Amino acid sequence: MWFCVARSADLDGPGAFRTARVGRESVIVSRAGDGSVRAFLNVCRHRGARLCTEESGRVRRAFTCPYHAWTYDLDGTLIAAPNLSKMPDIDRREYGLVTVHAREWIGYVWVCLAAEPPPFEQDVLGAVTTRLGDLASIENYGIEKLKVGRRIAYDVKANWKLIVENFMECYHCATIHPELTAVLPEFAEGYAAQYYVGHGAAFADEVEGFTIDGSPGVDRIPGVSDDQDRRYYAITIRPQVFVNLVPDHAIVHRMFPLAADRTVVECDWLFLPEVVDGGSDLGPSVELFHRVNVQDFEACERCQPAMASRAYAAGGVLVPSEHHIADFHEWVTGRLGITR
Amino acid sequence: MWFCVARSADLDGPGAFRTARVGRESVIVSRAGDGSVRAFLNVCRHRGARLCTEESGRVRRAFTCPYHAWTYDLDGTLIAAPNLSKMPDIDRREYGLVTVHAREWIGYVWVCLAAEPPPFEQDVLGAVTTRLGDLASIENYGIEKLKVGRRIAYDVKANWKLIVENFMECYHCATIHPELTAVLPEFAEGYAAQYYVGHGAAFADEVEGFTIDGSPGVDRIPGVSDDQDRRYYAITIRPQVFVNLVPDHAIVHRMFPLAADRTVVECDWLFLPEVVDGGSDLGPSVELFHRVNVQDFEACERCQPAMASRAYAAGGVLVPSEHHIADFHEWVTGRLGITR
Amino acid sequence: MWFCVARSADLDGPGAFRTARVGRESVIVSRAGDGSVRAFLNVCRHRGARLCTEESGRVRRAFTCPYHAWTYDLDGTLIAAPNLSKMPDIDRREYGLVTVHAREWIGYVWVCLAAEPPPFEQDVLGAVTTRLGDLASIENYGIEKLKVGRRIAYDVKANWKLIVENFMECYHCATIHPELTAVLPEFAEGYAAQYYVGHGAAFADEVEGFTIDGSPGVDRIPGVSDDQDRRYYAITIRPQVFVNLVPDHAIVHRMFPLAADRTVVECDWLFLPEVVDGGSDLGPSVELFHRVNVQDFEACERCQPAMASRAYAAGGVLVPSEHHIADFHEWVTGRLGITR
Repeated sequence: MWFCVARSADLDGPGAFRTARVGRESVIVSRAGDGSVRAFLNVCRHRGARLCTEESGRVRRAFTCPYHAWTYDLDGTLIAAPNLSKMPDIDRREYGLVTVHAREWIGYVWVCLAAEPPPFEQDVLGAVTTRLGDLASIENYGIEKLKVGRRIAYDVKANWKLIVENFMECYHCATIHPELTAVLPEFAEGYAAQYYVGHGAAFADEVEGFTIDGSPGVDRIPGVSDDQDRRYYAITIRPQVFVNLVPDHAIVHRMFPLAADRTVVECDWLFLPEVVDGGSDLGPSVELFHRVNVQDFEACERCQPAMASRAYAAGGVLVPSEHHIADFHEWVTGRLGITR
Repeated sequence: MWFCVARSADLDGPGAFRTARVGRESVIVSRAGDGSVRAFLNVCRHRGARLCTEESGRVRRAFTCPYHAWTYDLDGTLIAAPNLSKMPDIDRREYGLVTVHAREWIGYVWVCLAAEPPPFEQDVLGAVTTRLGDLASIENYGIEKLKVGRRIAYDVKANWKLIVENFMECYHCATIHPELTAVLPEFAEGYAAQYYVGHGAAFADEVEGFTIDGSPGVDRIPGVSDDQDRRYYAITIRPQVFVNLVPDHAIVHRMFPLAADRTVVECDWLFLPEVVDGGSDLGPSVELFHRVNVQDFEACERCQPAMASRAYAAGGVLVPSEHHIADFHEWVTGRLGITR
Repeated sequence: MWFCVARSADLDGPGAFRTARVGRESVIVSRAGDGSVRAFLNVCRHRGARLCTEESGRVRRAFTCPYHAWTYDLDGTLIAAPNLSKMPDIDRREYGLVTVHAREWIGYVWVCLAAEPPPFEQDVLGAVTTRLGDLASIENYGIEKLKVGRRIAYDVKANWKLIVENFMECYHCATIHPELTAVLPEFAEGYAAQYYVGHGAAFADEVEGFTIDGSPGVDRIPGVSDDQDRRYYAITIRPQVFVNLVPDHAIVHRMFPLAADRTVVECDWLFLPEVVDGGSDLGPSVELFHRVNVQDFEACERCQPAMASRAYAAGGVLVPSEHHIADFHEWVTGRLGITR
């Protein structure tokens, strides 16, 4: 599947790279000489050494393995190795880095480790259309032009699927998210923003912005339509991305499953560049969903141990406002080839 | 099987609860409105959240899940949930907490996770009768009326079965328990107190009580018979309880297996309430068996690694004074359905 | 296979012992009354307690189990146990310690856990002959008479086979071993010392000894032939020993695999006893290969994660100067009964 690994802006020019864990693999994403994004398995083809051990960095023109100095250009082609010219049986075309499919969208780099990736349009864009009704609704926010104002990584002791389920329902909102329901009163009734196509939850009348204290927030994104103003939209892009949209910022969560019971969630708060650079106080905006995150992840960690309990062997129960989660369950079991 | 999880007195009134690990499950034991003891799997039926994360606590009238606020009364019945009245397809009778069989005896709460528990009389009381000859012999001590003077939890890096085997034989006493054999000279000969029905090991002539320094100890329990005076009795109640009886106190060990090579042993020293409340010095009494515990658990930890050695693949060898341990081995392999 | 566990000199007299991890077993090596070396599984035959928990020590005349005092003489024979004389069904000949084959060579104790060990001459001595052309070439160094001047244990987060592969090739030398190639210029070309039978890598002209700074080192070992002077020889003795020979010292590595991704490597630097006792500065000699070790083990750790990558599923590629490593791969897969 398509897996969102990095913010495009973090690859600011040829040779800039980031490494990310995708399933059991370490992947390098970097920018080639022509500015396009490339992705490779982070493994030297010669003896398997990890090429890059840092989380991010920049190479000049090539990746050189620190073990035997095999050198790959920014396209992944093997271009040099000690004594390579004297090695007739080493076909340098054969030993380029293992390429991973990559593309950019909304300012993020998405990769797919499959030999034949599923259509991005259907899997990723389709998730947005299904939720919002059309693509224009997300394009209005121009997320690719926004700037990361704050990034927080959460190390959650829970399976990624619990985090998805949590994000998909709002039946828990009244219980654990007092700050969020104060801004979005309909959430207190338990219906998730994801429940109706195109629906965005309206801000409370007395609230001026999507902030922890109801303060106005920062400059509104120009493309946001009047319909979208004072509303909150949430989209789940399977398997590991959540996008939240409010008039003055976007929040993008990317999950990195590290073990059956551990997931790192990297969350970006994105604002207009002039807002970030102008030194506006992002605190009240960031704090609201940061608290929601902490509340949610604590709930997920509380559920994790019961996944092995006989009391949960057949799963729990979905109340009417959670019924759409059944689709997710069906999708997971379908992907795993489990029939029940 | 019946598994001893908590001291009854620790559940001092309706809503008081304790959580305990039983096998792979977390169990809540608590007291209902009528004062009776109840036990439940510590798992919300809705989405699996752990209801209680604390080791002990008290709720007012119900257990409320902190995730979606599903609420269960002290009998485990689902009594409230947000929007529950609007959910025709959620049968509240169906979604009560998963009940675990529970009962009290000698002031402890015993639970059984089986759908059909084996007869308590046969399994638990039977173990006592087999060892002491009758139930009166333990009833004399009135353990349910005693008070915990000291509780120590030991984290032992050994399988629980090694701890049982160790407790069942006294062939090691001469080697590792100098303080114990000083009080119980016959133990130096290697015959376990558990070897003869009804036999209690006599205190050494020069010793005044079951204490680390031979001092008299504290007030004798009134019901203890003259036959039982100045004697030590030990009982193993499979799978995880050891009881030691001396004239002025009882010692109750409960094992909580946490992994193949790790067991937490919780040990209570129980005295007459007036002794505990009166401020008597319990030190010399507690110290004796605490030392025995430390010595025993060290020995068990020393055996644990060899359980995987080819030198122990067929097990070790039982000397004549250990022959009764063969019953334990047979019982374990029988329960596991292993035929040799 | 034969596994090198201890320096003979560390067993300095009857009753001196060392314990070592060999595969999944703990082994005791010790010296018997007649001065010969013995090895046993470190498991009491009675109930499985570990006899010796220390890494090294000395017993007087026997090993006594600290649990039940079963006692074995220095030959491993059961000689005493509490009440042993009253136990007709315990045959003391049957319950001696489990013996492990052991022998000494070049001042080290080698053990083999197989019931029928492979011929030492073929497996161990054969590895030397294959590499050096004859046994005399190693005997010249009189390693058994040398003395440990320095011992360093490295805890390497890599599989032992990666460490063997690294030791077998010098294609990486130019990249990661600047100090070593400064002393042995031909190593910069990537051909391992192990490539040609009998070949030793010549020291650089401007270098006076095998030292970090080109300084002369210490007294030359008298038996070293003129042919061997100013040369470096390296031998791999499968599965876990590397020997390096230079005119004034020998370096012996012993690997102890502890997990699929963890190996402890114990490295001895051996010099003439008078050199060690005379207080010569061993620093420049030790530092050279210590740096090589650190550089190598870092490289191995960098390769370990990729062993599970799809990019390495078929292994990497061997360049011509690494082709002899294919023998090692074939040998490993052959021993494991893997056919490809």
